[in-house]
Amino acid sequence: MRKPEKLKIAIQGISTCFHEVAAREYFQDAIDPVECLTFHKLCESLKKNECDFAMMAIENTIAGSILPNYFLLQEYKFSIVGEIYLPIHLHLLALPGAQLTDIKTIESHPMAIRQCYDFLHKLNGIELRESDDTAISARKVAEKKNKATAAIANEFAAERFGLTMLARRIETHKKNFTRFLVLSRAAKSKEESNKASLCFEVFNEVGSLADVLTVFKTNQINLSKIQSIPVIGKPREYSIHVDVEWAHRKNYEAAMKQVQKQTHNLNVFGEYKKGKIEYK
Amino acid sequence: MRKPEKLKIAIQGISTCFHEVAAREYFQDAIDPVECLTFHKLCESLKKNECDFAMMAIENTIAGSILPNYFLLQEYKFSIVGEIYLPIHLHLLALPGAQLTDIKTIESHPMAIRQCYDFLHKLNGIELRESDDTAISARKVAEKKNKATAAIANEFAAERFGLTMLARRIETHKKNFTRFLVLSRAAKSKEESNKASLCFEVFNEVGSLADVLTVFKTNQINLSKIQSIPVIGKPREYSIHVDVEWAHRKNYEAAMKQVQKQTHNLNVFGEYKKGKIEYK
Repeated sequence: MRKPEKLKIAIQGISTCFHEVAAREYFQDAIDPVECLTFHKLCESLKKNECDFAMMAIENTIAGSILPNYFLLQEYKFSIVGEIYLPIHLHLLALPGAQLTDIKTIESHPMAIRQCYDFLHKLNGIELRESDDTAISARKVAEKKNKATAAIANEFAAERFGLTMLARRIETHKKNFTRFLVLSRAAKSKEESNKASLCFEVFNEVGSLADVLTVFKTNQINLSKIQSIPVIGKPREYSIHVDVEWAHRKNYEAAMKQVQKQTHNLNVFGEYKKGKIEYK
Repeated sequence: MRKPEKLKIAIQGISTCFHEVAAREYFQDAIDPVECLTFHKLCESLKKNECDFAMMAIENTIAGSILPNYFLLQEYKFSIVGEIYLPIHLHLLALPGAQLTDIKTIESHPMAIRQCYDFLHKLNGIELRESDDTAISARKVAEKKNKATAAIANEFAAERFGLTMLARRIETHKKNFTRFLVLSRAAKSKEESNKASLCFEVFNEVGSLADVLTVFKTNQINLSKIQSIPVIGKPREYSIHVDVEWAHRKNYEAAMKQVQKQTHNLNVFGEYKKGKIEYK
């Protein structure tokens, strides 16, 4: 009997990175990761049919939205077909035998560095170095065999690359989540969806946003996120990104018909099932 | 005659950094910069009376809001007494005589690195290194006299540290602004203010945000920014940050009386005169 083929999932980073962890959790382990070093390459990989889906980090409790990824969503016009919230636990990884006092340089993804600010703040004379991915930083520590360098990464990277956890759970906020989107070239059946991500521009008048939100209210649609994003090159113009949730799809459809009339450049990035937030 | 004393302004970075440029522009050059290497130290400096005001970058057209600074605003309870929008022009600086092909490492503030993504993307085999400040990176290139290292920084840093501009205007988006807040220990006279920054939590019910925005609408108050920020540790709870603008102060006061009733944890970060956005 032929083994069922695994789904090819593009991830930003290398194997063991948080994107892979999110993909394994969302697709229940049946995946074949396609490593991409930037979010731009991740989108290209999906566009060129090199993978079935792509995972894209979109926001984090501490660092906020990854705004450039919103621009990529607009550019590539993929569909969001799912989401997952992943708790982010970060550790300081070094070569076996290294001590905290040996460390002169710490390398990681800028977002991970920022999330460990309080811990890093207490260390003196450490150089911080930015990388494309937490797992890449961990692999580099293992490969270079330099006891003076440590990486901030997850436990899977520690295991895979044979590194010691010099300090565990060094993230400042212990209840920190990253939200990942599952992207596809085509929209999937919307039957079981109860959440959508959209953006629109409102006319530059007092109250135009209030009127749009009132439409959602009238139709029993809950907002789980709202964010105004400046339109580059047009000061005082904003595009509004919202995530909306509903109990009955017909309410969502009724609201959208109305919202279409009250906004311009309305763009639905995807309709999908909302993810759960669970502490571990 | 005694020379009038200059205002002491805390900046995040060292002299010639964008914070200093913003301070000089806002206070019309009459300043004495107090260098702080982190935003945390910047707040401590203001708290401890080591300066009269502090400049704090709060958002950028490309990179979005600097969320950790919103948390600092909440923690320190300073007043925002002004704002300024600064166009961000970035250059690649190296030792005189260095060629682009000599460069192996490029160092700068993570936000500057991100803003030059398209330019950096085209270079091969370059290591990117994160620093606390664009100007610090430029100074380091000058001090270390290493032709293989370049910094991304502004023209003032090039001049001050005697560096060559290997590439000019390497920022991806040419109409990129950073918005800086002017912070003070005490609120100032609100007579000439026409803008306020506030945050509040709304009850977890469909439409509660729509109702608050309708209050602003009814009172002719314009929203120039809105952003939901997750409450750490409380999934599904959000704090809403808005910037509002008015033509008549009495409208703002009437709106706030009503908003107070419809929200909880209402917090006014400051009332001030809105800044202009001017391309250069």
